[in-house]
Amino acid sequence: MAHKSPGGGTRYRIMSAAAQLVADRDGGDPSVAEIAKAAGVYPNQITYHFGSKDSLMVHAAFLGLLHDAKRVEKIGWRAIDAESFRRNTSRAVMAMPSLPSVSRALAAAIARPELSEVVDTHLRLLFQQSERYLQALAAERNWRSERPLALEVRTFWSAALGATLLFRAGLNGRTSDLDLAQTLTLHD
Amino acid sequence: MAHKSPGGGTRYRIMSAAAQLVADRDGGDPSVAEIAKAAGVYPNQITYHFGSKDSLMVHAAFLGLLHDAKRVEKIGWRAIDAESFRRNTSRAVMAMPSLPSVSRALAAAIARPELSEVVDTHLRLLFQQSERYLQALAAERNWRSERPLALEVRTFWSAALGATLLFRAGLNGRTSDLDLAQTLTLHD
Repeated sequence: MAHKSPGGGTRYRIMSAAAQLVADRDGGDPSVAEIAKAAGVYPNQITYHFGSKDSLMVHAAFLGLLHDAKRVEKIGWRAIDAESFRRNTSRAVMAMPSLPSVSRALAAAIARPELSEVVDTHLRLLFQQSERYLQALAAERNWRSERPLALEVRTFWSAALGATLLFRAGLNGRTSDLDLAQTLTLHD
Repeated sequence: MAHKSPGGGTRYRIMSAAAQLVADRDGGDPSVAEIAKAAGVYPNQITYHFGSKDSLMVHAAFLGLLHDAKRVEKIGWRAIDAESFRRNTSRAVMAMPSLPSVSRALAAAIARPELSEVVDTHLRLLFQQSERYLQALAAERNWRSERPLALEVRTFWSAALGATLLFRAGLNGRTSDLDLAQTLTLHD
């Protein structure tokens, strides 16, 4: 998709470089100068393509998330039954390297109403991808969920992102202190 | 508790004023000057009592949340069965005026490691209060949960705060697009 428009290559290179820099460090966002250097572009090209650093961080975080989600989907396909699917998926999602940066990017977007459209678009993309995946998996295994899959994925991602927010903000403890698996209702 | 230490009255007055100002406006935090004026103190008294505005915002947000939670508890006590308890509680929690400011305060704390202790303390207080409440309610009604109540409250609050984060960051839709009630397992 990024390659269809002129400058799509540059745009994608900036996003990937930002996503990589975020993944490489724990906490603290990289600066625009660092991202520009890593992507091999001028800092003003970042403003040109994304408008602001916060906007770029949303794009980069979701690029990482959609990528990680694909990997978690593979883990899900290997589950021997619905219970292990729920357990393995929850565990893998909470270990996703991109989840903290998504929660940080969303948090930054709260104070930036001009980012709400880009946030909405990316979240819808995520929900759509997850929903299609659950649909295909449920059909193949003959599993059922206790509610529409659109509700299922929104509830699940809310809990996963909320838990990440709590832990990143300072909650002591382990992800096993909460029961993310229970927010999935797919069963045999 | 606040009244036990010298200056406790001032401290509490600052927190209440901040919580009130946040509740009165949608989005954007009040400035230190505005909070000081509303509390009838000098701006440097805010720094003296809380260290930073972000720290004050965490205190104020949780003051509001613990207060709102007490009100939601009363709604829960009036439920005629476990199913309506789960439904009414979820709806009331998503309508809490304090929830967006808690999600904003937690988001700001991500970039401020010095706030993690105060975040941890307040979250533990919230979980403890919710757990005791569910315990008392379950005992009186003879309801059971499908998992330890410590897990129950952490999962529920993660989903509620995560959903608030998503909607505040820009997700279009209604809270009925997700199934918070399902994250509670208390049943008859």
